[in-house]
Amino acid sequence: MALYTSMTQTQLNEELQSVLAHYNRCKQQNLKLNLSRGKPSKMQLDISKDILTALSDDAECFDGAIDARNYGELAGLPCARRYWAEILDCKPEQTFVGGSASLNLMFDVIARAYSHGLLHSPRPWCREETVKFLCPSPGYDRHFRITEFFGAQLITVPMTAEGPDMDMVECLVQDPCVKGIWCVPKYSNPDGIIYSNAVIARFANLKPAAPDFTIMWDNAYCIHEFDGEYVQIPDLIELCRQAGNPDMVFEFASTSKITYAGAGFSVMASSEANIDYLTKLFGVQTISYDKINQLRHVRYLKDKATTLEHMKKHAQIMAPKFAVVADALEMQLGPCGFARWNRPKGGYFISLFTMPGTAKRAIELCKEAGVEMTPAGATYPYGKDPDDSNLRIAPSLPPVEELEKAMDVFCTSLKLAALEKLLSV
Amino acid sequence: MALYTSMTQTQLNEELQSVLAHYNRCKQQNLKLNLSRGKPSKMQLDISKDILTALSDDAECFDGAIDARNYGELAGLPCARRYWAEILDCKPEQTFVGGSASLNLMFDVIARAYSHGLLHSPRPWCREETVKFLCPSPGYDRHFRITEFFGAQLITVPMTAEGPDMDMVECLVQDPCVKGIWCVPKYSNPDGIIYSNAVIARFANLKPAAPDFTIMWDNAYCIHEFDGEYVQIPDLIELCRQAGNPDMVFEFASTSKITYAGAGFSVMASSEANIDYLTKLFGVQTISYDKINQLRHVRYLKDKATTLEHMKKHAQIMAPKFAVVADALEMQLGPCGFARWNRPKGGYFISLFTMPGTAKRAIELCKEAGVEMTPAGATYPYGKDPDDSNLRIAPSLPPVEELEKAMDVFCTSLKLAALEKLLSV
Repeated sequence: MALYTSMTQTQLNEELQSVLAHYNRCKQQNLKLNLSRGKPSKMQLDISKDILTALSDDAECFDGAIDARNYGELAGLPCARRYWAEILDCKPEQTFVGGSASLNLMFDVIARAYSHGLLHSPRPWCREETVKFLCPSPGYDRHFRITEFFGAQLITVPMTAEGPDMDMVECLVQDPCVKGIWCVPKYSNPDGIIYSNAVIARFANLKPAAPDFTIMWDNAYCIHEFDGEYVQIPDLIELCRQAGNPDMVFEFASTSKITYAGAGFSVMASSEANIDYLTKLFGVQTISYDKINQLRHVRYLKDKATTLEHMKKHAQIMAPKFAVVADALEMQLGPCGFARWNRPKGGYFISLFTMPGTAKRAIELCKEAGVEMTPAGATYPYGKDPDDSNLRIAPSLPPVEELEKAMDVFCTSLKLAALEKLLSV
Repeated sequence: MALYTSMTQTQLNEELQSVLAHYNRCKQQNLKLNLSRGKPSKMQLDISKDILTALSDDAECFDGAIDARNYGELAGLPCARRYWAEILDCKPEQTFVGGSASLNLMFDVIARAYSHGLLHSPRPWCREETVKFLCPSPGYDRHFRITEFFGAQLITVPMTAEGPDMDMVECLVQDPCVKGIWCVPKYSNPDGIIYSNAVIARFANLKPAAPDFTIMWDNAYCIHEFDGEYVQIPDLIELCRQAGNPDMVFEFASTSKITYAGAGFSVMASSEANIDYLTKLFGVQTISYDKINQLRHVRYLKDKATTLEHMKKHAQIMAPKFAVVADALEMQLGPCGFARWNRPKGGYFISLFTMPGTAKRAIELCKEAGVEMTPAGATYPYGKDPDDSNLRIAPSLPPVEELEKAMDVFCTSLKLAALEKLLSV
């Protein structure tokens, strides 16, 4: 095997025959595997068994004098706010603890910006001629979809090894129509990188033209290392305050990948002024979130130190899976020279750039061979990757044996798509 | 004691002295009681203790092949949809099982109507010149607030003993700006009446001018009898289908007053077309709701028969409290002749009409004597009762002894306010 781009036509044809033969053998296995979404595996879910009985008696359902079984405490139980404040390195008053999905909190922030405006909005976003939103890409399709849903123009900002291209961000925020940006600062989805301190400082010091410019700081993988020790990143809420932009950032996190996916508890953190403002607005939609589940989680996860210990159990399951992926890519694609990828130390994804113009075709080939991947393009605004090159690999769900088979199909499909392309030129 | 309205000035003055003396004795008790909201009491919350351990092991977390601990099943676990379909007398495909608050489902329906429109909307409601919403009153302040929040004009429709004044409703829906109506068909908040079959049939057969006219059918107290057996009301979803209005109604319910307030699970029921449409829209805001809590509830409450048995335990706690209120009103206010009220057989509230122009003052007097009541006016759109007459009593929270004291303060305050009014004329 050699670099595809240095092969002669004859060599390419020989390689095609060999890859095709292997692809057909893959197909004969009648696989039905799914690497499409960042779902935890059964083994990971089993880790948290004891949370089911963390509250087992009436007397345990109290946070001080507050009965978690009754209405009240819209911004969350005090113990739940303290818990998240410690995890996110902010103050309890800066937190709003919600229901089972941080995505819903993000949606609700954008939805209220649309219908009513945020704290510094001159008017609701639905009354603006044009709203633009910055989407560092590759990024998370569900983020992009929320702002698309509310009619915003999505603007692609390239990702670098340190985070979004801040030169471009600083330039774009001079447009008053640019109302915000989506970010996953730790183990970004899908690149798996950690934003550098320099990038984070530049975020805090942005001078946007829009008074209600909002950084949607989805710290989804805030404690989700699987390789090495916990990495602390700067608290953007505090940095924004120091930079004179106190209300510019909303941070989000949840326990979906700590305890149970979609059945954990979530948090939004921001300036006290933002939390007060949104608590009033959120009070129209609900009396209070599920405090029993908040309390159950706090009793089980206790504090940051205990939670970090808990995360090591996830790491033990995740690390070998990421190794399978990285090894397969290295072995099978490395010598061919047409693809590049990251090797993250945390989070849920590996981002891979294959030969431009072949990503869609590769995913199609995967599907034909029984392996479901995240659709090509999903990591870009409107699901359209201009280069048709980026792919997201989500190794968490399948067991290692299945993952090995799936990666064989994946690498073979990428090679096949690349060869088809090279031979069709 | 006699009818206040037939008293002479001298008699009124004597009565005032006597009532005032009693009021001052009340004040000296330094009470701190709250009858303002329909919160369950601690005794009621204690009933559901066993739900805390209804799921205590990994193996129990499955609904068939579906792992409730992972993402998926946006419209709810199949067993949860079956559970609610039986309770509400509809089909599982007509249900969407959500998170811990039905209020949030109602809010999300109106919010999506505002931002995107409902299934038959010509355009999103935010693009309409005027949106009007019918508010049968006295009614539930949190309902009214949702439509007010999204800029709708709230139109008061009087309540009768059988439900909203349907002559007026039928007339008002001829206005294409009228987009919907709020209803609590069983043990209405606060009147405590059950809509008659005739009223329900007239709802199904409405011919509204707006193609997206929506009945918000909040069946909050669908199985919440405390006096007598379970009362079945007609299934409006089916009646609407038969009347050629298949997509005109959204029904809502939750277990907030069955298990834990704000920590139960909720449901929205409607035509399959509506459920499909909204499931797509709700898919932008969340991947799935808390299925662990859905499963926990289904395991604990099992089915309709078991749930109705469970509700009898609530009834045993609620019935004596409603009796305390009814007896106090009868004894203390009955002879004075200036107030009228309902004696409901289910639900959470008693609605009382006092002497016009005195409700606000009465609530003020209650507060001064340490008894917090629902604010006067809260049961009308914009919190403004044109007659300043209706008051809502929520007897569920305090223990019987406290309730007796609170009702003494309440009746005394009503009398005092009425006397002040009569003497100031």
